Amino acid sequence: MRVDARRLRHDIESNASFGAIPAADGRGRTLLTGTDADRRAREYLCERLRDAGLAVRVDAVGNVVGRWTPPSADADAAPVATGSHLDSVPSGGIFDGPLGVYAGLEAVRAMQDAGVEPARPVDVVCFTEEEGQRFGGGLLGSAVAAGALAADEALEVTDADGVPLGDALAAIGFAGDDPLDAEDWDAWVELHVEQGERLVAAEADAGVVTSIVGLSRCEVEFLGEANHAGTTSMGDRADALAAAGAFVTAVERVATERHAAAETAVATVGKLDVAPNAPNVIPGRVSLTVDVRAVDHDDIVAIIDDARDALAEAGAERAVEATLDHCWDRPPVAMADRCRRALHASADDVGASTLDLHSGAGHDTMHVAAVTDAALLFAPSRGGISHSPREWTDWSDCATATGVLAGALADLAGA
Amino acid sequence: MRVDARRLRHDIESNASFGAIPAADGRGRTLLTGTDADRRAREYLCERLRDAGLAVRVDAVGNVVGRWTPPSADADAAPVATGSHLDSVPSGGIFDGPLGVYAGLEAVRAMQDAGVEPARPVDVVCFTEEEGQRFGGGLLGSAVAAGALAADEALEVTDADGVPLGDALAAIGFAGDDPLDAEDWDAWVELHVEQGERLVAAEADAGVVTSIVGLSRCEVEFLGEANHAGTTSMGDRADALAAAGAFVTAVERVATERHAAAETAVATVGKLDVAPNAPNVIPGRVSLTVDVRAVDHDDIVAIIDDARDALAEAGAERAVEATLDHCWDRPPVAMADRCRRALHASADDVGASTLDLHSGAGHDTMHVAAVTDAALLFAPSRGGISHSPREWTDWSDCATATGVLAGALADLAGA
Repeated sequence: MRVDARRLRHDIESNASFGAIPAADGRGRTLLTGTDADRRAREYLCERLRDAGLAVRVDAVGNVVGRWTPPSADADAAPVATGSHLDSVPSGGIFDGPLGVYAGLEAVRAMQDAGVEPARPVDVVCFTEEEGQRFGGGLLGSAVAAGALAADEALEVTDADGVPLGDALAAIGFAGDDPLDAEDWDAWVELHVEQGERLVAAEADAGVVTSIVGLSRCEVEFLGEANHAGTTSMGDRADALAAAGAFVTAVERVATERHAAAETAVATVGKLDVAPNAPNVIPGRVSLTVDVRAVDHDDIVAIIDDARDALAEAGAERAVEATLDHCWDRPPVAMADRCRRALHASADDVGASTLDLHSGAGHDTMHVAAVTDAALLFAPSRGGISHSPREWTDWSDCATATGVLAGALADLAGA
Repeated sequence: MRVDARRLRHDIESNASFGAIPAADGRGRTLLTGTDADRRAREYLCERLRDAGLAVRVDAVGNVVGRWTPPSADADAAPVATGSHLDSVPSGGIFDGPLGVYAGLEAVRAMQDAGVEPARPVDVVCFTEEEGQRFGGGLLGSAVAAGALAADEALEVTDADGVPLGDALAAIGFAGDDPLDAEDWDAWVELHVEQGERLVAAEADAGVVTSIVGLSRCEVEFLGEANHAGTTSMGDRADALAAAGAFVTAVERVATERHAAAETAVATVGKLDVAPNAPNVIPGRVSLTVDVRAVDHDDIVAIIDDARDALAEAGAERAVEATLDHCWDRPPVAMADRCRRALHASADDVGASTLDLHSGAGHDTMHVAAVTDAALLFAPSRGGISHSPREWTDWSDCATATGVLAGALADLAGA
């Protein structure tokens, strides 16, 4: 079975033209759900799926599924599925998501070209709104497919302008009918870029994920007293930003300490807003988010506990009221042994070196793994950069990982 | 000479209705230059000035001047002037600015009622855009009056939507002709709320300012690398916000240390913006401002030097490129002895206790003092709160300070 590296590259580069943005360094795109760029990307995908003889359907929340049912397959057998997403963060890269979708399609074409005869149908899937940049907090389409979120509720999620997802999908012609049910799949494998530097550091061709980290999100508020920057003496201040600054460095410190013992543990203050945010006014209010991840849930709890202690101290020292809301918590998810074994066997077949590693990001696989056997395969990310036009995976690495995926899918589909 | 406390309060409360905002605690207003609220506040002021027999003119940048030329005065003599501003910060208080404008008018009315016969005309002034919330960085009208900024340049300053000040003033009917020239005044006295807690702590009725602090502003940039919050290990990060957090606490620390030796020294990080500012992305860029003030310029320089050292350390520890631009510097300004003496003598006359103190804010007096003898009088601020609906000065304190002002103006005007 031979993957066509040029065909794969052509698809990914064609997809990169939708929502393309100028970038001084690298190659960027902004593809938000329900935009015209999204419509064009989806239409291009549907054409490519149909060109390869797949039957395309759009589900209730815009998830696109192309099904290959070869003569060898029992049309009623539970399919093996693969895929990822096409949406991006603002000013994101061209591989995060699209590699997995088009690698899935290329794997099917490679099976077709090689005359592989699977016993099960193969589904190639594009999930809606993985990034959560316009509607909701991320992984929306896969959450619906896995039954973690009702389709009706998902369609009512609104963007910052109050537009519901349902209207946005209808506007681009991608409002479908029944929701996809991931439970119907016999197995699932997603290929994604690593977005880290472990594969490059280990000089491995591909990464076989053992476990997806648990993820907790906290919302922290600091309430001080907005006051005049010139007339309020240092001792009379209740400076919400000074308290937040101390907390941000404390989060960095406790996560770094925990990381030394548990390398999957990380914590990030990614979003911070100041009010009134004027140069001559002592900040009266700061809100920020803390994102905490680890494969061992105990590490997440320990980081949040330490952060709470630091928060109390930072607030008390400055007469600033500080509160932390641990607003959601997704437990770590282990990948299915049989799917991982299929990936390792396929890698051996094509002579690709692999590294077993955890995933620091959730990916759609996190939801799918809750209802069927699932695995996640990583391709190397140059410099570990992602969510940026500087995100890069060499075309040869894309092809090698796609070859590993194709072999595993053929195996799981009973070829 | 008797100040009419009820008349003064009526004017300040009437003015508070323009741009009034709901406030759970206190009494707030948002009065930005060139808005409809600004037009109504200015029209009300012009009516009140004319009611008291003052000749009103509007200068090139919208500064409003009411001139009282009693029969006793030489109409060609250099006037004595007083006043402040009517604009506010967003969600500001009702005294910051309006007290000085309406106390100036009330002082004239008190002189009229008492039959005081000054040898010089008395000008009551409302300066345009003191707060710098819509056009420029603050003190705009007084900068033009003092020749620190050309009227033409001021009129071309644009707001965030690109509207020039000149158009905004024309739209509300307050685009006048020649610029006011503060050099024509024999003396200037401004009454303002303290916006600090020193008068209340000392149980003094009014504060006589000895010197206005120098003010430096720095713009600081942190350039790290935006990256995925889940897939980037703690050691591989270039987190711009973690570096900024360490810097914010360092500014607080160096200013607090300096403050212990030099009580007028303060430093504030009031504005901080994060990019891309998403919960799951490590911040790639942070920009922030540092506002540094002290009556001794050496203290300002020392704080900025210490902040630069802390900045270099915070950046180097995190592979974040950090730069500080010391973008402007206004030296400290001493008040005129003869004007301060007039205030002290008047306070003795009315039995008001005073405290000599510095001003941590610039106020329009900062500009006027560069071209004529000037003084600044403070009324007590409850709780020291300002730039907030919770800003408060008791009505009796407003009246007492206005009485001190009236006596000083009569004295300086040669009554």
